[in-house]
Amino acid sequence: MMILRSAAPSPFGRKVRIGADVLGLAADVEFEPADVVDPNDSVRRQNPLGKIPVLLIEDGTAIYDSRVVLEYLDHRAGGGRILPRDWDARLAALRLQALCDGILDASILLIYEGRWRAADKHEPKWVAHQTDKVARGMAMLEAAPPALDATPDVGQITLACALGYLDFRFARRWRSEHPRLVAWLDRFAAQVPAFAATTVHA
Amino acid sequence: MMILRSAAPSPFGRKVRIGADVLGLAADVEFEPADVVDPNDSVRRQNPLGKIPVLLIEDGTAIYDSRVVLEYLDHRAGGGRILPRDWDARLAALRLQALCDGILDASILLIYEGRWRAADKHEPKWVAHQTDKVARGMAMLEAAPPALDATPDVGQITLACALGYLDFRFARRWRSEHPRLVAWLDRFAAQVPAFAATTVHA
Repeated sequence: MMILRSAAPSPFGRKVRIGADVLGLAADVEFEPADVVDPNDSVRRQNPLGKIPVLLIEDGTAIYDSRVVLEYLDHRAGGGRILPRDWDARLAALRLQALCDGILDASILLIYEGRWRAADKHEPKWVAHQTDKVARGMAMLEAAPPALDATPDVGQITLACALGYLDFRFARRWRSEHPRLVAWLDRFAAQVPAFAATTVHA
Repeated sequence: MMILRSAAPSPFGRKVRIGADVLGLAADVEFEPADVVDPNDSVRRQNPLGKIPVLLIEDGTAIYDSRVVLEYLDHRAGGGRILPRDWDARLAALRLQALCDGILDASILLIYEGRWRAADKHEPKWVAHQTDKVARGMAMLEAAPPALDATPDVGQITLACALGYLDFRFARRWRSEHPRLVAWLDRFAAQVPAFAATTVHA
């Protein structure tokens, strides 16, 4: 049995939970909540960065971050399923994952601005810098939404988690100006039951 | 000819420059500086996140982030060289890369605290949170420094770039308490000429 240290709202943890389910490994993964702010939580001994998700496998190895965990799970499931072996498909999946991880990183920095700092210490230029990253990334994706494979790849899984995070933390505001991505996410949700099963409501 | 959009002080750009050199591809990569703050720099059209490094390949595809670029270069060089094919070695390399990328991310957030915010708006709890990530990661690495392969893998390359970044931005202060990592970096620098060739002095 593997143990996934994560938290329900974590979009990076969600990538892993959806990936495990798509690969047929969900029953082998036990979810154990982690608190990344609590200094006594053992997650900081499992991953010195104190970040989630961390996957603990049977031999005691702690695997992180989400990209590495997804590659491990794909390997464990036989390989070439959510991380394509065909190079062109693999590069497209990796690049889409990097873009959507970057949208998530910028979005999380925006949330942290409110969580870690008093309102009078917010920095408008920083907020605009991060907001613009999200906006440019979303515009690029809306202009040419990616394919959605029968078995979604790591890039497609990450896009779904990024859109889900914007739903959760930013009041679904992205939807009005990104109708093609709304349609894409509807298809993803209809095809991948783990998406609805891991949705957290604000 | 490939074009690398980056900046000399970027530790993630340095990963790519060292990786290309180790793989014998340095002569195929032209360095073109990018300014991630200038809104008119074309890097934001090449990577909507506005982050470096970005590798532009001959067919016009823009590849990012540094992990994806390194996997691309390894593939282009025949595969299995800086990204091992053997699964255990590959997992160790990927995990070390994730740890060292995380040390870099936290270190860069510390630099950004000074660059983006007036001194009276710094947030000590945030600074401590990021500082502790770096400290725990460095302690784990000092306790058990990784191997150094004849052809360094992506994890080993990233560790060298992380230590080099701490030298550059944090006045080499890490050295006094991490003698085994100092020795490791000395060996890396002696073995990999691209390390010295990409060193930026404060």
